[in-house]
Amino acid sequence: MSELRKDPIIGRWVIISTQRGKRPSDWGNEPALSGGGFCPFCPGNEDKTPPEIVAIRNFGGQRDLPGWQIRVVPNKFPALQIEGDLDPKGYGNYDMMNGIGAHEVIIENPNHATEFADFDHAHIVKILNIYRERMLDLRNDPRFKYILVFKNHGVAAGASLEHSHSQLIATPIIPKRVSEELEGSKLFFDSKERCIYCDIVQEELRVGTRVVESSDDYVVIEPFAPRFPFETWILPRHHYSHFETMPDSQYYSLAGVLKKTLQSLNKALGFPPFNFILHSAPVQDKALPEFHWHFEIIPKLTKVAGFEWGSGFYINPTPPEAAAEHLRGVQA
Amino acid sequence: MSELRKDPIIGRWVIISTQRGKRPSDWGNEPALSGGGFCPFCPGNEDKTPPEIVAIRNFGGQRDLPGWQIRVVPNKFPALQIEGDLDPKGYGNYDMMNGIGAHEVIIENPNHATEFADFDHAHIVKILNIYRERMLDLRNDPRFKYILVFKNHGVAAGASLEHSHSQLIATPIIPKRVSEELEGSKLFFDSKERCIYCDIVQEELRVGTRVVESSDDYVVIEPFAPRFPFETWILPRHHYSHFETMPDSQYYSLAGVLKKTLQSLNKALGFPPFNFILHSAPVQDKALPEFHWHFEIIPKLTKVAGFEWGSGFYINPTPPEAAAEHLRGVQA
Repeated sequence: MSELRKDPIIGRWVIISTQRGKRPSDWGNEPALSGGGFCPFCPGNEDKTPPEIVAIRNFGGQRDLPGWQIRVVPNKFPALQIEGDLDPKGYGNYDMMNGIGAHEVIIENPNHATEFADFDHAHIVKILNIYRERMLDLRNDPRFKYILVFKNHGVAAGASLEHSHSQLIATPIIPKRVSEELEGSKLFFDSKERCIYCDIVQEELRVGTRVVESSDDYVVIEPFAPRFPFETWILPRHHYSHFETMPDSQYYSLAGVLKKTLQSLNKALGFPPFNFILHSAPVQDKALPEFHWHFEIIPKLTKVAGFEWGSGFYINPTPPEAAAEHLRGVQA
Repeated sequence: MSELRKDPIIGRWVIISTQRGKRPSDWGNEPALSGGGFCPFCPGNEDKTPPEIVAIRNFGGQRDLPGWQIRVVPNKFPALQIEGDLDPKGYGNYDMMNGIGAHEVIIENPNHATEFADFDHAHIVKILNIYRERMLDLRNDPRFKYILVFKNHGVAAGASLEHSHSQLIATPIIPKRVSEELEGSKLFFDSKERCIYCDIVQEELRVGTRVVESSDDYVVIEPFAPRFPFETWILPRHHYSHFETMPDSQYYSLAGVLKKTLQSLNKALGFPPFNFILHSAPVQDKALPEFHWHFEIIPKLTKVAGFEWGSGFYINPTPPEAAAEHLRGVQA
């Protein structure tokens, strides 16, 4: 079983994953994307993944057989596993617990070569609804404090398979990065009785220079202090702390904005590797007045190096105002 | 001039670097290492770098001319610049200040192809002494609160030039990552009157499974909760909070340990790209009883992906105990 271990100095948890285990002697050869080779996510290879959790399929299709449009399966090499107890314990001077959680793969479409930005609008709506459905299901398990939905696209962004997919990891503790956002927004709310993200949306629309796109429901910005060139955030204009409990219409309009944003990044940057990450409130919390869910999209253009690892500072060579202007230009 | 901008939610500062500026349309072509091409760090090309700050040179050698063994120059594309005032200011809802600091390059030797692990012991002692000397000089400038020394080796680790070099960045604020270490170790000290790093050294020597190497002055470990496979720390056995104010003998023995550790990682992992980072106490602080300087070495074997960016959690597929055993094996 995997282990969760806590750094005793700064309190950062890491997952020591034995299921994904690499023996020390396995290192040294860079794993490449399996391009033309065998793909366990393609139709006909359903038996090469663990049995499906849920799928959207064409009329008459059968479980774990071809005929699906979207398919959710457990990760074959899960970072965290679903069976067992957390069993937190000391270990010499240190703290650890069992690696309990869920790790699922959302196979976004049956076609091996179609990428997310090229799915049609209706299909992206279905993917977003699958994210919602999985979050609503998994939050029934009280062991899971947080659910992170994310996508790695391209080798440089950490994808190990080419066939378009996203992932979901449910964790038994609130991750550090999420806590920082929650604490920062709580501090702001306590002093001003306003959501800091709502303020950011208003301020960005007022200033305009960092806005890429805005619709009735969403605003797309390059944030004021981005870690990376072309780091892009999608924020709902209306205040929702949780992604998974919005009215239906919100997923419909989000699908259009997400597609257009990914297309713009593709045009501007020549189809870059990227990550997108859903930042939503902890699933066991009630609606929070201080927190506002959002997507962060990170095109993988720069390398994270010694300075960043040592300082937590990031050096970004492209001002967000210039990036936003460029993205507005390619959309035109 | 570069700008320091603060994320309004989590308080993370980023450097928007115009000197290293990339126009939005410049992205899309991955910069490659200039392998056989022109190298501004090679002897004879001294006029292709800014004038040197300091150098160790052979008898009779002249400033900014060949004949040096180690040469320190300002970074030609500095993330932060040395002239000017911080001038902190608001900007709409946001906080920013001028990008004031120092950014220096330590060209570690005149030979283009020799890497750090292959320098002889006496030469590494000189490099470590140059780090010390630069830190002692720059701390005289009260604008600089922190000095980070680091090395990027290989393209994947963020190096843009092949010729072996390290870097130093002096920052006008204490970086977030450093604050976390200082706060964590202070909390421990306040409760126990002991340095947490001294405790870790003792505990690791007692347990033994994560120890790669130990000498009279240093211990080399795979930490209990490493973010990355083969993440390796070098800690002094004696308590020093500041790297730059140790007795001379400590640099001498450190050089041997550092060389041997890098050689072991090379043997175990097939000459991986890596970062090493010096974690030392803030230069303006007096000696701290709670903090203990150390080196962190990060071989670049895995990709940081959406889950890590979104959660601050890291998934590490190789337990540190297995990595330590493997490293002890290749040394034998």
